[in-house]
Amino acid sequence: MIKIGIIGSTGYAGNELVRLLLQHKEAEIIWYGSRSYIDKKYAEVYANMFQLVEDVCLDDNMEELAKQVDVIFTATPQGLCASLVNEEILSKTKVIDLSADFRIKDKAVYEKWYGIEHKSPQFLEEAVYGLCEVNREQIKKARLVANPGCYPTCSFLTIYPLVKEGIIDPNTIIIDAKSGTSGAGRGAKVNNLFCEVNENIKAYGVTTHRHTPEIEEQLSYQAGIPVIINFTPHLVPMNRGILVTAYATLLKDMKEEEIREIYHNYYEKEQFVRVLNAQVCPETRWVEGSNYVDVNFKIDRRTNHIIMMGAMDNLVKGAAGQAVQNMNLMFGLKEQEGLMQVPMFP
Amino acid sequence: MIKIGIIGSTGYAGNELVRLLLQHKEAEIIWYGSRSYIDKKYAEVYANMFQLVEDVCLDDNMEELAKQVDVIFTATPQGLCASLVNEEILSKTKVIDLSADFRIKDKAVYEKWYGIEHKSPQFLEEAVYGLCEVNREQIKKARLVANPGCYPTCSFLTIYPLVKEGIIDPNTIIIDAKSGTSGAGRGAKVNNLFCEVNENIKAYGVTTHRHTPEIEEQLSYQAGIPVIINFTPHLVPMNRGILVTAYATLLKDMKEEEIREIYHNYYEKEQFVRVLNAQVCPETRWVEGSNYVDVNFKIDRRTNHIIMMGAMDNLVKGAAGQAVQNMNLMFGLKEQEGLMQVPMFP
Amino acid sequence: MIKIGIIGSTGYAGNELVRLLLQHKEAEIIWYGSRSYIDKKYAEVYANMFQLVEDVCLDDNMEELAKQVDVIFTATPQGLCASLVNEEILSKTKVIDLSADFRIKDKAVYEKWYGIEHKSPQFLEEAVYGLCEVNREQIKKARLVANPGCYPTCSFLTIYPLVKEGIIDPNTIIIDAKSGTSGAGRGAKVNNLFCEVNENIKAYGVTTHRHTPEIEEQLSYQAGIPVIINFTPHLVPMNRGILVTAYATLLKDMKEEEIREIYHNYYEKEQFVRVLNAQVCPETRWVEGSNYVDVNFKIDRRTNHIIMMGAMDNLVKGAAGQAVQNMNLMFGLKEQEGLMQVPMFP
Amino acid sequence: MIKIGIIGSTGYAGNELVRLLLQHKEAEIIWYGSRSYIDKKYAEVYANMFQLVEDVCLDDNMEELAKQVDVIFTATPQGLCASLVNEEILSKTKVIDLSADFRIKDKAVYEKWYGIEHKSPQFLEEAVYGLCEVNREQIKKARLVANPGCYPTCSFLTIYPLVKEGIIDPNTIIIDAKSGTSGAGRGAKVNNLFCEVNENIKAYGVTTHRHTPEIEEQLSYQAGIPVIINFTPHLVPMNRGILVTAYATLLKDMKEEEIREIYHNYYEKEQFVRVLNAQVCPETRWVEGSNYVDVNFKIDRRTNHIIMMGAMDNLVKGAAGQAVQNMNLMFGLKEQEGLMQVPMFP
Repeated sequence: MIKIGIIGSTGYAGNELVRLLLQHKEAEIIWYGSRSYIDKKYAEVYANMFQLVEDVCLDDNMEELAKQVDVIFTATPQGLCASLVNEEILSKTKVIDLSADFRIKDKAVYEKWYGIEHKSPQFLEEAVYGLCEVNREQIKKARLVANPGCYPTCSFLTIYPLVKEGIIDPNTIIIDAKSGTSGAGRGAKVNNLFCEVNENIKAYGVTTHRHTPEIEEQLSYQAGIPVIINFTPHLVPMNRGILVTAYATLLKDMKEEEIREIYHNYYEKEQFVRVLNAQVCPETRWVEGSNYVDVNFKIDRRTNHIIMMGAMDNLVKGAAGQAVQNMNLMFGLKEQEGLMQVPMFP
Repeated sequence: MIKIGIIGSTGYAGNELVRLLLQHKEAEIIWYGSRSYIDKKYAEVYANMFQLVEDVCLDDNMEELAKQVDVIFTATPQGLCASLVNEEILSKTKVIDLSADFRIKDKAVYEKWYGIEHKSPQFLEEAVYGLCEVNREQIKKARLVANPGCYPTCSFLTIYPLVKEGIIDPNTIIIDAKSGTSGAGRGAKVNNLFCEVNENIKAYGVTTHRHTPEIEEQLSYQAGIPVIINFTPHLVPMNRGILVTAYATLLKDMKEEEIREIYHNYYEKEQFVRVLNAQVCPETRWVEGSNYVDVNFKIDRRTNHIIMMGAMDNLVKGAAGQAVQNMNLMFGLKEQEGLMQVPMFP
Repeated sequence: MIKIGIIGSTGYAGNELVRLLLQHKEAEIIWYGSRSYIDKKYAEVYANMFQLVEDVCLDDNMEELAKQVDVIFTATPQGLCASLVNEEILSKTKVIDLSADFRIKDKAVYEKWYGIEHKSPQFLEEAVYGLCEVNREQIKKARLVANPGCYPTCSFLTIYPLVKEGIIDPNTIIIDAKSGTSGAGRGAKVNNLFCEVNENIKAYGVTTHRHTPEIEEQLSYQAGIPVIINFTPHLVPMNRGILVTAYATLLKDMKEEEIREIYHNYYEKEQFVRVLNAQVCPETRWVEGSNYVDVNFKIDRRTNHIIMMGAMDNLVKGAAGQAVQNMNLMFGLKEQEGLMQVPMFP
Repeated sequence: MIKIGIIGSTGYAGNELVRLLLQHKEAEIIWYGSRSYIDKKYAEVYANMFQLVEDVCLDDNMEELAKQVDVIFTATPQGLCASLVNEEILSKTKVIDLSADFRIKDKAVYEKWYGIEHKSPQFLEEAVYGLCEVNREQIKKARLVANPGCYPTCSFLTIYPLVKEGIIDPNTIIIDAKSGTSGAGRGAKVNNLFCEVNENIKAYGVTTHRHTPEIEEQLSYQAGIPVIINFTPHLVPMNRGILVTAYATLLKDMKEEEIREIYHNYYEKEQFVRVLNAQVCPETRWVEGSNYVDVNFKIDRRTNHIIMMGAMDNLVKGAAGQAVQNMNLMFGLKEQEGLMQVPMFP
């Protein structure tokens, strides 16, 4: 059994980690870290865990944790993991960081977009960007994995085969993304109250959302050139789910079937990416509760654009599921272990 | 592997059966019956099953089915199972009927409340009411199980220990129930459109809902006398979940802890009934996607009433989950096999 | 023009007051009080008011306010109005208090249920309970009106004709109420976050909700005897609306039409109470945004119960609309002035 | 009083027309047309109108109607108005068509995108596109007004000042639009059931939505050249509201304030278009129930894109409200008569 500690276990991503790991045959959570609910029973914070988790919330003493567990998940605000991690910890345990601290290789870019100082830049090079479909082999050997952001995961997997193959001009990409409200976290803010979110849709973080440079960096690796995109997220009155609608200019005059073939080539061996049939648009309801990303596209001959679409559960493949997928790789387990939940509908 | 056929696989309960059985180690679905979508790929009707189910929908030829499978689930409108089942079929295969056809022992009561003729009254006596927590031993030996209704399951499990123990006057019971909209089925009706259900709550079937006699019959067995209750269901703008708030007059002057003790005695060995801690009200969100029923109560000394509350996922413990629980018992498997989904929140 | 000041204008009820008063021909708001948003533009707190309200939020200096306005609405937490009001203020201006401070005549009952000391018991006798349908004449002459609670308004109007006429036993009344989430206010609490409320239903305040003694007091006046009831509220994932489902034992063997006749007698001259046709259940969607209460009932001969139902918009007839109705009466205007909004659907 | 007939009064747009016209001082509805509910009381189809509308639904005999009313609103499926209207009717009464029949000047374009034959092409030239903010003077003199589509209204008003002023390249425009579900109508379709729409977001009609040529035609008039755009609508789990997020390439290097100034110049005299303050994104909740369109924009210097945003209630400014606005102009009333509803929140 892999001994697990979670720092930030009482956020929504933390709770989703607990849900998945409780159903994982090789995993045992022994540390439920939570600054806000320390000494409180975990099942009193999340009553879905009543009779399933008897533990009490602990602090975030990462040094102590490193002695006790095989892997630490940090599902914490930006900056926390970077401020806690050190060589001694990494020498004893693996770390999967669900925050943004180690996703962006360039310290200056991180500090500019996140507005905080990076406390552990010495690990930026070592950290592996944990998008399993792309960095599988490096993840297997990693001590420190930067679990990708929710929007970047969905955006990247929806777009990247066409960037890699040179089918689209990467610098024309516009990503219009829509997210359920769990992505906003469990903090008590007026803007996230039921009556404020329900019966409403809005854009937010327009031109300034922090996931922008993360998407750009990953697409740049695929394009082989620097990529600048426009990314605009929206808040949708639903609990879970991200839908990405991405637009780009086609560089080649290809048939729809040829492009679908490319997607199939990239994803046919991937357990968690489903390339939908022609004419079928991805919908968040069809992936809810699962680790799947559904992708598809449509060509607009009139404007020479391609519209690429992807749907995903932001808490699973966009956070906790992908983190478990990374854990599986890091510990030599089957990649899909504990992640074969069938999407739940309705 | 248990070979399974589902008649009515394209309703919401049918789809939930598929979700659960795909994750069940001993089950294999080989017949996806559906009158409405015959010859259509199942995954085109429910895209959550894309790449998980390759089958095409078949008809509801129960005689043919009986030759091929070990158990038939009928998740069909009232009257269908009773019109199809016969001795030959039951001699070859087991039947778990999710409709109401075999839940009520008295043919006249069934015909009065459902307004249709019962086509197979000869099996009424044999059929076992599939509430595992009560009829476990009979279910193990049954050929034909009547899977309980959603409201009756939640109502009964919330109330029955106090009826059985004579703590409350069963003929004072008032059940005010609230259900998510999946309980209304997938039929295309104006009343169930998004804009009609969203931002609304209403009572329906007041004094006439068909689950009333089912609840009464089961409570009568426990009380040892005929029980007449008032049952009022409401439609809530959410997908899943039933909440029961039941009121009754206390017959004995007992302390809260004494009554909680009774609940614990009844349910401590039950995997799927969770007696909550004092002061905690059941909420549907904490059981979503799981087979749990959460129950609790509060005493109102001012009126000498007890308020009993229960929360459940109507598609799992209220339909498909309970059906699988019955199947497990009928085939000698562990009762919780394939049913240990952790509730999903949010 | 009636000059108006609102203390607590940035809560949901306060915002609804603003919405209604902006459309009221005889009203002019000149003071937008708000402790939380002092010096901030009102339209930045509620952007629906952009270009409609140019004012900046002010403090809650009631003495100063009393010099400037004809009427003060207090849409504030319990205790505030009672701590601010005094004879000098009431000698200069009228006060309509949307909090509970002056609803309950018995200081001890108020203090027990609300857990705070009443700071102005000297005005309890003078204050008029502002349920226009019952206390119309007293309201016209009042200086201080206690605007009824949301649950009490809907509960009382649904039930009282049958109590008054002796048709039901008032001490058997059970009220199972369901409310939209705006009733919980705009405070930033985890329990009211979108993801916590959405896809969920729960009871709360079971046996202890503060609206219980308010309902009991008003029903007692009608019954002529002390009335003790059971009241259980529930939180529903919708913005607006209250549905009351009330149960009681019939004392007389009457036909449905006879009872409907009683309702008609009580309400045929009331602008804002609609007695629905036979077999039609009240639904919150049909009154949204309006000052209407829809009521109806159903007799259950099997249990000798009557089920009385009422639906209302909690922010209009349950708060701001009723407050404006009171204002109209207090200033000799037509009772429905500014309140004839047609319910908005969907 | 203006005598009014509505054909298609029992759709959502029809019901919204009724809501608005009942509160309009100069309007009197005398004909509630509805094919589906003929001879049924209107208030039984829409119970919000109980006691407010006593009329029974009538047929769609436009010739008879023309004799009785001053203006006919047709809120009907595509093709119906064109098949009914004729010179005799137009000589007796005015017609405001809420369908698409007379929005597109080019018969061939209409027939291609809508897939039906146009039955009255002789009126295409005469019909005035009823976007009051642009065609005010022609509307005043019109017999036949083509009420704009919901997406086109919101898209056009969000974008057109910058097209007209040559600030953006019109052929780079990408419109990513999001709509509440009332836009899908009241037809009983599985795809619009509560459980199918709730907790989901999807794109639909990608590259093929019929509002595309309507937007293009109107933008072409402003640009002075043919404009081809990409338009992608999405379905959002809410009742009302449209949000448009539009992307285009900037042609000029302008400051944000300069562009805001342009918007102000275009809209400062417009009652129903609100240009928001810097940094404030439009949200559908702030316009619900009202005739307002809120617009704003953000410049992305990194990509040289401008993101233009608009929010609107699809049933008001996007359908019934705009139709009433047109009626007001056609009958010489104040343009805002009956349309000054304050947005309702929450």
